[in-house]
Amino acid sequence: MKAEIIAVGTEILLGDILNTNAQYLSKELAQLGIEVYFQTVVGDNPQRLKDTLYQAFSRADLIITTGGLGPTEDDLTKETAAAYFGEELVLDARALGRIQKYFDRTGRVMTENNRKQAMVPKEHGIVLYNDNGTAPGIIIEKNNKIIVMLPGPPKETVPMFENQVKPYLQTKQEYTFVSEILRVASVGESAMETLVKDIIDAQTNPTIAPYAKFGESILRITAKAKTEAEAKTLIAPIKAALRERLGSAVYAEGETNMQTVVAQLLLSKHLTIAVAESCTGGLLTSALVEYPGISEVLLEGCVTYSNQAKMQRLGVQAQTLETYTAVSAQTAAEMAEGIAKTSGADIGISTTGIAGPDGGTAEKPVGLVYIGLSIKGKTTVTEYHYTGKRNQIRERATMYALDLLRKALQYEA
Amino acid sequence: MKAEIIAVGTEILLGDILNTNAQYLSKELAQLGIEVYFQTVVGDNPQRLKDTLYQAFSRADLIITTGGLGPTEDDLTKETAAAYFGEELVLDARALGRIQKYFDRTGRVMTENNRKQAMVPKEHGIVLYNDNGTAPGIIIEKNNKIIVMLPGPPKETVPMFENQVKPYLQTKQEYTFVSEILRVASVGESAMETLVKDIIDAQTNPTIAPYAKFGESILRITAKAKTEAEAKTLIAPIKAALRERLGSAVYAEGETNMQTVVAQLLLSKHLTIAVAESCTGGLLTSALVEYPGISEVLLEGCVTYSNQAKMQRLGVQAQTLETYTAVSAQTAAEMAEGIAKTSGADIGISTTGIAGPDGGTAEKPVGLVYIGLSIKGKTTVTEYHYTGKRNQIRERATMYALDLLRKALQYEA
Repeated sequence: MKAEIIAVGTEILLGDILNTNAQYLSKELAQLGIEVYFQTVVGDNPQRLKDTLYQAFSRADLIITTGGLGPTEDDLTKETAAAYFGEELVLDARALGRIQKYFDRTGRVMTENNRKQAMVPKEHGIVLYNDNGTAPGIIIEKNNKIIVMLPGPPKETVPMFENQVKPYLQTKQEYTFVSEILRVASVGESAMETLVKDIIDAQTNPTIAPYAKFGESILRITAKAKTEAEAKTLIAPIKAALRERLGSAVYAEGETNMQTVVAQLLLSKHLTIAVAESCTGGLLTSALVEYPGISEVLLEGCVTYSNQAKMQRLGVQAQTLETYTAVSAQTAAEMAEGIAKTSGADIGISTTGIAGPDGGTAEKPVGLVYIGLSIKGKTTVTEYHYTGKRNQIRERATMYALDLLRKALQYEA
Repeated sequence: MKAEIIAVGTEILLGDILNTNAQYLSKELAQLGIEVYFQTVVGDNPQRLKDTLYQAFSRADLIITTGGLGPTEDDLTKETAAAYFGEELVLDARALGRIQKYFDRTGRVMTENNRKQAMVPKEHGIVLYNDNGTAPGIIIEKNNKIIVMLPGPPKETVPMFENQVKPYLQTKQEYTFVSEILRVASVGESAMETLVKDIIDAQTNPTIAPYAKFGESILRITAKAKTEAEAKTLIAPIKAALRERLGSAVYAEGETNMQTVVAQLLLSKHLTIAVAESCTGGLLTSALVEYPGISEVLLEGCVTYSNQAKMQRLGVQAQTLETYTAVSAQTAAEMAEGIAKTSGADIGISTTGIAGPDGGTAEKPVGLVYIGLSIKGKTTVTEYHYTGKRNQIRERATMYALDLLRKALQYEA
């Protein structure tokens, strides 16, 4: 089944409203195995609305609209769809009663134009009563075409889809689509794609789609089958091949993120941690704090921005700072060891680098970052070179530090 | 000028990505006096992409696309548009050099497929160099049709539009549109709108558009006139009226943010600062570190997540923690005083609260946050109640702490 999603409303075209319904519906339809070919936003203009709907009917089996079901004259979605199907609109007593009740409950007076919202198709319509607003939704199914018309406000759209439209659509589907996700760290989207290109190209079912998300790359493997079990069987060998190729760069599967994976590793291994940051300036600690319950293992973080703080809080040697400077492997090592020791944590992790835009030299350019990791007294330092603006460098260093920690934690008891 | 916005990317049709670019571009085009007739999302499918672009060319004067400029084979926006205009794509040495440099800086190897991103139209193209990623944008203008192709990630799209496309589009418009921005802190969008509704409603030129940005509210005042000077003259009295109504809630004008304003205040007043965080967990220090040059005044930050760290690093009294608990005005005060004292900073600022989702009680619910501020030995604590998820509470507390600091700094010599 091919689908299109159409949002009707000039306010979206003016940028006053973010079209979150389109994302929600796309995700839900993908889960149902219904492919969305287009999302369109059209204003409250009769001719353009008609053109858009008729074009969508010519390309798709299923159209889902949001908006344009209100009481005012420029709300025309229902009228336009009914005209396409040759359906007459008649007053639905139950819908009218519910609208009347809604006004009574909110203490407002129902104006005459609200009757328009209770008009429904005479023959091939299904009325979707609205528990969260006045406008009912409508489904019209005729000649192998389906239109599902939903109200615009997400607090009405979402429950109406969830409770009434989803069960309806499930009965229409012959195939199930199952997606699984591999999450890849410390490798860019294009480098990842190069690594697995032959596997991607050899596949049609399941398909493999690579894409970049903030600070990570993702591979989505989607199989089409008669049953969920069958789809999973199709996915398994492909997933295994991708995992083998990418090795430890695959840091997780499914809906999660790096900070969650690292936090869960720390918690499951009962390892306490403390963080000493310079260039990342609190981002690394903050990423760990995103995980609820991290307080069990995260003892503290120190943003030792000045040399004075590095010496006083972490015990970095004045001699080290003088000889090697604050941005050096030696300082990173002493920071990691120092925070572990002064906090009493099993693990100390540190960052020191040049986030820019100033402060770089030929020898130590902007983007140079050292990450120190001290686990139970054993310390390693890794050198990285990042590009981008100050905050991109800080964010990348944070993700790489977490990934370094993740890899090291795999080998800890 | 009629415009359409087309986002290219299967990931949007799958619901993996929210199409925020469409809203941003719609708003910007409205500001420029350009009407948007359609927003469309199409997948990475050659035929559907072609159909969508050609249809848009048949209806609109200006098309703005986002996405589909990447290095992979299914990135086809540029190729499709070039074919429509009969333009040959040739390698742009400067674009290639910039991409190569981008990879060099990140210490990664540029793979062959990245050369694709440096292909530009031979004759009628304008190359929009990308300061925040690898794919350059492209403008093609020919036969009274314009296409502006932008990369997909908002952190690349937005600055490219702002710095390169907007000035270009302004030259196409008969009228000049000048916008000025008032930035409002610690007041929600709808509360702000209520405060100034009568001023907004009374205006047609300039118009006043309120909107919410991350952690702040914004009023954009836009005047339409023949010259920039004339537009500014129209804006001045309205801006003054808004400023008078909103008072000290207006924290800045124009393109800046709260951390920049606070950092500049600290630097101009030569006041050193140190940060002690609990619930914000590094976000507050990290926000200050975003400002280059902050190292002159930011001595350090401590994320004292455990009670042990609060006592050891900051000298919070065990008695205080026992009697009042870690989330209390008393603890916030001792944290702020402690970090100022142990670091030797003029100012100590602290946060302690319950970010949730667990850990709340009837007396101390999730969302309760205390912010302590100790300036040259004088300490105040403010209590806040936030709603939202764990990270929203942490982010709000961070913005409010910065705003509290901003207001206090205004009275410091």
